[in-house]
Amino acid sequence: MRAVGLIVEYNPFHNGHAYHLQASKEAAKADVVIAVMSGNFLQRGEPALVSKWYRTQMALLNGVDLVFELPYCFAVQKAATFANGAVSLLEAAGCESLCFGSESGDISAFLRTISFLEEKQQLFNENIKHHMGKGVSYPKAIALAYQQLSGSKDFLDLAKPNNILGFQYCKAIVDQNSRLEPLTVTRKNADYHDEHFTSETIASATSIRKAIFSEEPKAAKKIGQFVPEPTNRLLQQYKQQFGGFHRWGNYWDLLQYKLITSAPEELKEVYEMEEGLENRLIEAAHQSTNFQEYMERIKTKRYTWTRLQRLSVHALTNTKKTEMNNVPEKAAYLRLLGMTQAGKEYLNKMKKHFSLPLVAKLSSFKEKEILLDIRAARTYAMVFPKTIRTQMLYQEYQQPPIFIQK
Amino acid sequence: MRAVGLIVEYNPFHNGHAYHLQASKEAAKADVVIAVMSGNFLQRGEPALVSKWYRTQMALLNGVDLVFELPYCFAVQKAATFANGAVSLLEAAGCESLCFGSESGDISAFLRTISFLEEKQQLFNENIKHHMGKGVSYPKAIALAYQQLSGSKDFLDLAKPNNILGFQYCKAIVDQNSRLEPLTVTRKNADYHDEHFTSETIASATSIRKAIFSEEPKAAKKIGQFVPEPTNRLLQQYKQQFGGFHRWGNYWDLLQYKLITSAPEELKEVYEMEEGLENRLIEAAHQSTNFQEYMERIKTKRYTWTRLQRLSVHALTNTKKTEMNNVPEKAAYLRLLGMTQAGKEYLNKMKKHFSLPLVAKLSSFKEKEILLDIRAARTYAMVFPKTIRTQMLYQEYQQPPIFIQK
Repeated sequence: MRAVGLIVEYNPFHNGHAYHLQASKEAAKADVVIAVMSGNFLQRGEPALVSKWYRTQMALLNGVDLVFELPYCFAVQKAATFANGAVSLLEAAGCESLCFGSESGDISAFLRTISFLEEKQQLFNENIKHHMGKGVSYPKAIALAYQQLSGSKDFLDLAKPNNILGFQYCKAIVDQNSRLEPLTVTRKNADYHDEHFTSETIASATSIRKAIFSEEPKAAKKIGQFVPEPTNRLLQQYKQQFGGFHRWGNYWDLLQYKLITSAPEELKEVYEMEEGLENRLIEAAHQSTNFQEYMERIKTKRYTWTRLQRLSVHALTNTKKTEMNNVPEKAAYLRLLGMTQAGKEYLNKMKKHFSLPLVAKLSSFKEKEILLDIRAARTYAMVFPKTIRTQMLYQEYQQPPIFIQK
Repeated sequence: MRAVGLIVEYNPFHNGHAYHLQASKEAAKADVVIAVMSGNFLQRGEPALVSKWYRTQMALLNGVDLVFELPYCFAVQKAATFANGAVSLLEAAGCESLCFGSESGDISAFLRTISFLEEKQQLFNENIKHHMGKGVSYPKAIALAYQQLSGSKDFLDLAKPNNILGFQYCKAIVDQNSRLEPLTVTRKNADYHDEHFTSETIASATSIRKAIFSEEPKAAKKIGQFVPEPTNRLLQQYKQQFGGFHRWGNYWDLLQYKLITSAPEELKEVYEMEEGLENRLIEAAHQSTNFQEYMERIKTKRYTWTRLQRLSVHALTNTKKTEMNNVPEKAAYLRLLGMTQAGKEYLNKMKKHFSLPLVAKLSSFKEKEILLDIRAARTYAMVFPKTIRTQMLYQEYQQPPIFIQK
């Protein structure tokens, strides 16, 4: 059985994802599709719209056969670490290829760019250092250094967000000596960061989330046009069951409380807290009425918005440097969130070849890093209504992997 | 100018307090009344119904001339520590006497009991140890040991809550070699813990709070009968301005969040966290839907309800052993919360004789323990509506002492 791997957040699963999924399956000539999906907190440092269990259902009902969780220690991270974790999981799960969407659509451009930068590594690093010395953020410095070096249009346009991610996936494959074959398909229409609908059926997850949170009833209705039916139904169901969707605003009280009751010395221990930032966060927490205001107060040229959102997720989930600094480059376990019948057959046949322990039930597994996933899920559950919160705090232990027969 | 000192919480100020105040002033033949009042968290380990600023207004409008804050490090403590802090403040503020309400009403009984227990100290301590060995709580062990020793009705009935407090005040005076003269007046009617109205005009603060939180509109209306007009008016005003009153239930989300995101090793550092209790608290936080349920889960014979509520306040305010274990027996500053015209005149005349620094503006004062008061006030403010919370977080720095001209 040939398996193609995808790296996803599905926040929420939309028509663009459905297209990518089918195109990947074809490009890889695969029998099953395996997705490595972030848990409840995402790479950009935000809570997912709906829980990982609902996003797993969306994935399975839309053509994914197996969903594994990308552990917190890789999911809420800069692109390179994120990619390393995800690639190591797909390899461990026996995938033959990894297929990602990109603006470029040309896999050879990715590979050329990697070798080129490896050759010029020293110069490249010097350029990055030079730009950071001028006070710009790390991602910005990389882009500038790259611009200086490249120039020929043979190379990848690393100003495009999906090209950057794809580049990191390919680089992780190379660095890990992985046997995964990298594949890419061109993304349809919507740009990653689009906030408005620009096509009739394809829209970015960003614009869909914006519509979901819109106070205009019309905007919310329009969503049906951009997501497959199961997504729409599950979103409705989630809203009914839990009273709404998750966003930073819901966690503002908890983050503010955390920051105003912590001593600077305690906050220094939070992962990614660089010297002096802790005072900035505390100050902003005292002065701000909501999360947006707080973010605008802590933003500087030196740190990207995303980096500061991730830092805030780590503060919220009480994730410490001591817990994260020893995380190995590769994942340590394959946490199964859900499967279809085909996924189950794949598992039965292949799991003896998996190079990592398969975790279907948390209570029987004691790996240290999984504590971070559990704490993240529990922090995420804190905004559920009091009456169901207790049950949700135990969900990690009680919820078996989702199984969808089809 | 002769000053009498009172030790109060005024949660809220009611007719019984008004009676105690007048009776104390007469008994002491005093010109001014000085109250040492707990801040936003109280001795029984609960948030005060309304903030210390509103309770200061109640005090001043009802006959108190000067209100000083009992610092957090004495206010949220067992009776003996509470008494030591309060007595040291009244002495520092130049009071000639301390007058407390008691069931006994006979000051000589207090003093006799103290000398008696001092004589029998060794035996007394052995008896306490003996009872604690059987697994009962510390206060219960004291009561049992005392019962064994006393017997003669000349001695104080230490089963009565106000006698216990008064006993601790007298003991603090003796232990500190204070020049305060201890006085006591008999309490009118209501028992400390009464939950129901038993008289026409005097009711316990407990029963008044119960009526305030009652969902029956009639019960709330009845309050006017048991509190002076200014209290009633200020309570209405508070409700209008802040949307309601404070109780543990409002802080449940924050406490639950704190407990579920903390590692046991972190919680071990919380003040008063005894070996093993941290796991009990974490477990209960995961299982409970509200504060009451949580308390019932953590309660054991070994710890009183009050002790566990105080521990929960310390967890909520992130108060550490390292911050509290070095707190000296006596207070280090006189934080002025409010004054009347007479109080102001007293201050002008007497402050040069004060044995502690007088703090009217926080921004000009850097004593370490005051950080605990500030953090407590900020934690307390976390349940105000988002729109005014920011302003309230700065109240400690912006609010000058309340002045009431009359």
